[in-house]
Amino acid sequence: MTETVLHPFTERLVKEFSARGITVGTAESCTGGLIAKLITDVAGSSAVLRGGFVTYTNEVKTALLGVDPTIFAEHTEVSRACAEAMARGARERLSCTLAVSATGFAGPGGGNEKDPVGTVYLGIATPSGTYSERFSAPEGATRDEVRNTAAGRAIEMLLAAGENF
Amino acid sequence: MTETVLHPFTERLVKEFSARGITVGTAESCTGGLIAKLITDVAGSSAVLRGGFVTYTNEVKTALLGVDPTIFAEHTEVSRACAEAMARGARERLSCTLAVSATGFAGPGGGNEKDPVGTVYLGIATPSGTYSERFSAPEGATRDEVRNTAAGRAIEMLLAAGENF
Repeated sequence: MTETVLHPFTERLVKEFSARGITVGTAESCTGGLIAKLITDVAGSSAVLRGGFVTYTNEVKTALLGVDPTIFAEHTEVSRACAEAMARGARERLSCTLAVSATGFAGPGGGNEKDPVGTVYLGIATPSGTYSERFSAPEGATRDEVRNTAAGRAIEMLLAAGENF
Repeated sequence: MTETVLHPFTERLVKEFSARGITVGTAESCTGGLIAKLITDVAGSSAVLRGGFVTYTNEVKTALLGVDPTIFAEHTEVSRACAEAMARGARERLSCTLAVSATGFAGPGGGNEKDPVGTVYLGIATPSGTYSERFSAPEGATRDEVRNTAAGRAIEMLLAAGENF
């Protein structure tokens, strides 16, 4: 069994957010639970993480997070609109300060000309609104590398968002 | 970045379950998304995993999975009763064939005389009923080892449950 190395920002996130009473939730598609896993690698994370969702099908994104199916029709599930709706849905359902979401193409299948494999939309829902970012893993990144780098970026975004609340 | 080694049974689970149309859901407390993460490490897992829940507080276990609060009062959240209610709740909400759950003491804090750190209750909900198992990590296991071995056992239980459906 490989020993888990804590993600460099998760210990800081748990320490700072627990000191300041900031709570967190997750809504994950392509990262499949990895963001929540990285946060809960840290002992004491129960003071910060309230919970999370893994929504691996569109039907489940709607059922669990309330993502409006017109978003899939108009933007597809790999889009800023979907990432933002997922984050918003998670924040409401978990009653947390901040929620983070990820939806993208981890590969090896999937992707298109506009959004090739390695593209992940990351959303952040906060008390004052929701925003998103388009993340691109380096070309040729493996499924594992896409998931790890996207999840790492999601944690950086959470940490940055926390500075304002 | 450490390269992820696929869990020995997850590739088999994705291959066998997708061939037979068996779908899966997760409900995780102490494993914090790790079971879903291990399954989604496998390319093609979207044919099998519908989604999952990370429920890190009792309030969220009730809100997201419908766990009756009397279970916490009578058995605590680290119990067969809670694991079974979590698995049942996930299976209903995800409309999947099989759901797996985990609730326990990953450490380093927590635990008691009856259920020391390293004790994890694992639940399986199936079309014909729900059952659970008490898992004990080897004495002295780290948080990381408890989470990894419990998640591994959860995947073995899922694979075994799949043989009947």
